[in-house]
Amino acid sequence: MTSHVISGLEARLALAEAVAREAGEVALDYFRKRETLVIETKRDPQDVVSIADRDVENLIRARFHQAYPGDGVLGEEYGLEHGSSGFTWVVDPIDGTSPFVNGMPNWCVSIGLLHDGVPVLGVISAPCHGELYAAALGMGATLNGKTLTLDLSRNIRNAVTGIGANNYVTPAFVGKMVESLLDAGGNFVRNGSGALMLAYVAAGRLVGYYEPYMHAWDCMAGYCLVKEAGGWYHPFPTQGETLTKGAPVLAAAPGAIEDLRSIAGL
Amino acid sequence: MTSHVISGLEARLALAEAVAREAGEVALDYFRKRETLVIETKRDPQDVVSIADRDVENLIRARFHQAYPGDGVLGEEYGLEHGSSGFTWVVDPIDGTSPFVNGMPNWCVSIGLLHDGVPVLGVISAPCHGELYAAALGMGATLNGKTLTLDLSRNIRNAVTGIGANNYVTPAFVGKMVESLLDAGGNFVRNGSGALMLAYVAAGRLVGYYEPYMHAWDCMAGYCLVKEAGGWYHPFPTQGETLTKGAPVLAAAPGAIEDLRSIAGL
Repeated sequence: MTSHVISGLEARLALAEAVAREAGEVALDYFRKRETLVIETKRDPQDVVSIADRDVENLIRARFHQAYPGDGVLGEEYGLEHGSSGFTWVVDPIDGTSPFVNGMPNWCVSIGLLHDGVPVLGVISAPCHGELYAAALGMGATLNGKTLTLDLSRNIRNAVTGIGANNYVTPAFVGKMVESLLDAGGNFVRNGSGALMLAYVAAGRLVGYYEPYMHAWDCMAGYCLVKEAGGWYHPFPTQGETLTKGAPVLAAAPGAIEDLRSIAGL
Repeated sequence: MTSHVISGLEARLALAEAVAREAGEVALDYFRKRETLVIETKRDPQDVVSIADRDVENLIRARFHQAYPGDGVLGEEYGLEHGSSGFTWVVDPIDGTSPFVNGMPNWCVSIGLLHDGVPVLGVISAPCHGELYAAALGMGATLNGKTLTLDLSRNIRNAVTGIGANNYVTPAFVGKMVESLLDAGGNFVRNGSGALMLAYVAAGRLVGYYEPYMHAWDCMAGYCLVKEAGGWYHPFPTQGETLTKGAPVLAAAPGAIEDLRSIAGL
């Protein structure tokens, strides 16, 4: 299997795991101090999470620039810096800012990597749960070092589907997508972090994840994790400037692909 | 404030905290071993969670019978045993069996207590998160010993609402309730455990929780927690056999009551 591995990918995976752990610790420190910071800085909680977001993204960018100055980086907070190596890191420093700001544990640091537009690496750190998800193309997916392999018998009726939505989508559309999923015999959760729910698909905790409009930094890491665990994802546009735009996101275990594609119309 | 406290309530709160911790440990042990148990017992995951559910409820019932033989007990697994003391324990040994069986951390042990039909105590243990929520009427609410007090400035537009639903409710109804909440400017999460989301309302992490049909064991503990943190709940029928039937559940921080009552039509 290693013969198909892209040159330089294994070293980048090791680096991404270390960086995700370090970034997760920094973010967790902000999370624990967020109420004190709101008082001390006389800002509102949303400002405090923005400060944490930028600080964590700067840390991640610095680590990748230092190790791989030719790699591009796209981050939620500071946009796209093009590179020359064919690799582009795709980073969400804190995915799930709503849980984060409200004191819920469902947030994560999400680090993906594109090689010529294909997601080839995914590392997600969920610091409140002490979990590190890691995958690279052709190298499998792991959770805290344990290999993840999807169960072929799971489908939307005997398992749970994750969903997400944001203001780009109308309330009527979201209501209808919930209704369609339930009508098809499914059930749903929404924990507030799309990247973490994609990691849960890779871990077999959810049988699929659907969100009508997401950005690359929310889904690239999760997509690689799901694929390497034996699942499928709906392609996300990654060429040129389309990479910074939003698109529908759907990932699923094999037994849920057909039902979820039908529900999402993808 | 202690002059209003019901006689015998303080001792029962101390007992309920100890029992919730002990029950949480037993449930956590099952949670960690669930994959091994599925293989060893040649049963499906749903059977394994049912075994855990019954085992944990038996433990809780035994502890309360021993300490307070005159108290009634209503549990999800073994139904209602009437008592003579005016107190009835209302127990969900594992709330959030769907997250539990799928390996997600959002489940809890929920212990409520009614006195002459009024929820007077609520203890919720979330073992994966190391959290113990506890409240008793007139004695306030705490999370791991820290007092919980709701923020009067939070509403459905600047905070997150929890929702739940089950097969008693039609897909169209659930879709409509999601649409109504979003139309009103709200946002939602659903973590798979109604009791835990009610505890999150008490902790200010969610601004309210609505589920169109729940049972007493899912909500009595959470209701007491929310009230003692400064929130409000929609009354649940607790007289006679109605206690074992389902009803709508709505709890909210002060700034979300009006909007959520309007959305729920309650």
